Amino acid sequence: MADRVDVEQHRADVAELLAPLADRPHEEVALHQDVLGRVVARDVPAPGALPRFRNSQMDGFAVRAEDVAAAAPGVPVTLPVAGEVAAAPGRPAPLEPGTAVRIMTGAPVPAGADAVVPVEDTDHVTFNGAAGGPASTVTVVRGRGAGEYVREPGSDVAAGDVVLRAGTVLAPHHVAAAAACGITRLPLLAPVSVAVVSTGSELVPADREPGPGQVWDANGPALEAAVRAAGARVGLRVSVPDDPEILRVALERAAALCDLVLTTGGVSQGAYEVVKDALPEVTFRSVAMQPGGPQGLGRVGGRPALTFPGNPVSAQVSFVVFLRDVLRAAGGLPPVGRGTAVLDGAVTSPQGRRQLLRGRWAGGAADGAPRRVAVVGGPGSHLVASMAAADVLVDVPAGTTTLDAGAEVSVWPL
Amino acid sequence: MADRVDVEQHRADVAELLAPLADRPHEEVALHQDVLGRVVARDVPAPGALPRFRNSQMDGFAVRAEDVAAAAPGVPVTLPVAGEVAAAPGRPAPLEPGTAVRIMTGAPVPAGADAVVPVEDTDHVTFNGAAGGPASTVTVVRGRGAGEYVREPGSDVAAGDVVLRAGTVLAPHHVAAAAACGITRLPLLAPVSVAVVSTGSELVPADREPGPGQVWDANGPALEAAVRAAGARVGLRVSVPDDPEILRVALERAAALCDLVLTTGGVSQGAYEVVKDALPEVTFRSVAMQPGGPQGLGRVGGRPALTFPGNPVSAQVSFVVFLRDVLRAAGGLPPVGRGTAVLDGAVTSPQGRRQLLRGRWAGGAADGAPRRVAVVGGPGSHLVASMAAADVLVDVPAGTTTLDAGAEVSVWPL
Repeated sequence: MADRVDVEQHRADVAELLAPLADRPHEEVALHQDVLGRVVARDVPAPGALPRFRNSQMDGFAVRAEDVAAAAPGVPVTLPVAGEVAAAPGRPAPLEPGTAVRIMTGAPVPAGADAVVPVEDTDHVTFNGAAGGPASTVTVVRGRGAGEYVREPGSDVAAGDVVLRAGTVLAPHHVAAAAACGITRLPLLAPVSVAVVSTGSELVPADREPGPGQVWDANGPALEAAVRAAGARVGLRVSVPDDPEILRVALERAAALCDLVLTTGGVSQGAYEVVKDALPEVTFRSVAMQPGGPQGLGRVGGRPALTFPGNPVSAQVSFVVFLRDVLRAAGGLPPVGRGTAVLDGAVTSPQGRRQLLRGRWAGGAADGAPRRVAVVGGPGSHLVASMAAADVLVDVPAGTTTLDAGAEVSVWPL
Repeated sequence: MADRVDVEQHRADVAELLAPLADRPHEEVALHQDVLGRVVARDVPAPGALPRFRNSQMDGFAVRAEDVAAAAPGVPVTLPVAGEVAAAPGRPAPLEPGTAVRIMTGAPVPAGADAVVPVEDTDHVTFNGAAGGPASTVTVVRGRGAGEYVREPGSDVAAGDVVLRAGTVLAPHHVAAAAACGITRLPLLAPVSVAVVSTGSELVPADREPGPGQVWDANGPALEAAVRAAGARVGLRVSVPDDPEILRVALERAAALCDLVLTTGGVSQGAYEVVKDALPEVTFRSVAMQPGGPQGLGRVGGRPALTFPGNPVSAQVSFVVFLRDVLRAAGGLPPVGRGTAVLDGAVTSPQGRRQLLRGRWAGGAADGAPRRVAVVGGPGSHLVASMAAADVLVDVPAGTTTLDAGAEVSVWPL
């Protein structure tokens, strides 16, 4: 590991390596599938006008505006009621001049009618038979002009209008708008496909009891979760021993199936040669950070490849610091980024290495003020317990050895 | 609709009606399933200690601390190297006093060894054969005390320690911690199950071309998306015409299958009686808001029931204002809540009704200052186009008729 670089350099190099992933293919996805949080690939036009047909905005009476023009409080106009139109399939009969038709919200306005008088502007409705039967006359106490309470076809959306812009991250109200326009399929950015390759002869899957010298493969499920939370998907997940031939086959398959190959482990002296030999186009580096120092980046089988350390805490920190926002950007999602917080207690940190400590929110904050954060656990990279309790990573710069309570720090949300 | 209430009253009534849903059943879910964003139902203890066995924190040499106690720069101690231990299955042979064993990070520390000397603190490693073959002696230039760089079993997590607290909303780092501890199943809160019943004879499903007088059922897919985004699930989704018998059967099934019954439509005069008759235990109200005024709440088949208006914009606004945070709370999730923004332009609003206008973020904000928001579209409840373009709902109080540019408003994130 000749290469020694700082965190920002490695971040920039990873971003550059993965920049071509942002040129995503599009895929058509049915609206009823799980589209929430996915990204619209290109502007989506309305296939037709909305409303599709002239309909009533209110419960009331469809009329010719000129027939009720004179109506006002004290000067009512009474019209015979020729029928009733509900929001239901079918075309209503045309309106005869000098008559009204009872109409429901959303129901088609009959040809010949050009206004709807809301029920609130009528009075003295008489009925043919029992109350509740069809009305026979209606007394209008307030006239309405042509077009009032009538929704014209296309008045909301014209055919071809853009309903969803390229880049929209889909939320329920976008689904509502698309469904209202009769859009059944959406062009979405295909998620980046990531291969998660856990290396290490000591690893056993979660459903097996480890024997002596064995540990569970935490990085498989954990990085799969991290990849999915970043809007990408896992195209292959495999755990391989430190065996050159098995590793070679796994990496070949990973590069064939996925856009990005991500390995964990194989950075200790024992396993290092195996992983290094299998990844001749990867540069292995020591990044001046803790945890997560041993990193690698390059290519395998023509695909971009990153190597993370095998410790589960180191691997998660590596993902957050180096990959999360790059992966989100490639998939069209905004960055999670970093925030600012105020330390709840003093922190000491070794000289020369940037520390990413696990932190937990400590109480609220005044309006607009940074939140307080308490460091949990020590700097050891094996502290799974503190990772489970953490809300953020607290970023202590390389040159800093002590920070007092109240100091402002940069934090990475988990 | 005798009842006329304001928005906060209806919000409070809905919250009270649905409060019993917060007493959620638990369910065991495999860690490899999609657990992200779900809520841990009870404290999850570690099934065993972590680390599971005594292992090395560094690449280096396992020794008896007393054998290297005298080592210092200029005063080296040379030990024969008896072998090598990798991170791999199996138990290493015990360490003979006065010898060293080469050891890799994560590898089991041999019985008899009580310290690891990192490779950086050694020098002049000699080899039996070719370079890269097994080392035969190692020269230690810095002594290490008993316990240094040795991870004791349980030093990170003891068996029975709480790994994940009840109430944790699962993120990737929680999956990492659980997987590292060998936890394969998690006790999670069962999501609230919601029945989405769209009513209206005019509705056709999205994959059918509407005939005269017909419209697509947007609320089915849109409310399903909203329910899922709030951490709940849709247990039944059905679209029914304004037919008393079909509606009765659908509601019966909805109440039998789900925790909450949500209907849309049926609030116009035409369909009203049908929906009202099918829901005798629901109180129908006019809430002083636009859109979304016609609301109902009560029970059907012993289950809590809410009725939303049928217009897709009104239904989405109803969900955000009345149901979203209540549903999230029932499932153990924090509220989305409301934020504050500054109007980008003047807004006029009718007297007497609280307006929920569609708003779009307009540019950034200075640190800590509220963001600027521009109102899109008018107050009409049928404006699907403006809903598609919106980021937030802008909340204009009932008593306010004009707001100047720069005025601070409450906003509901979409």
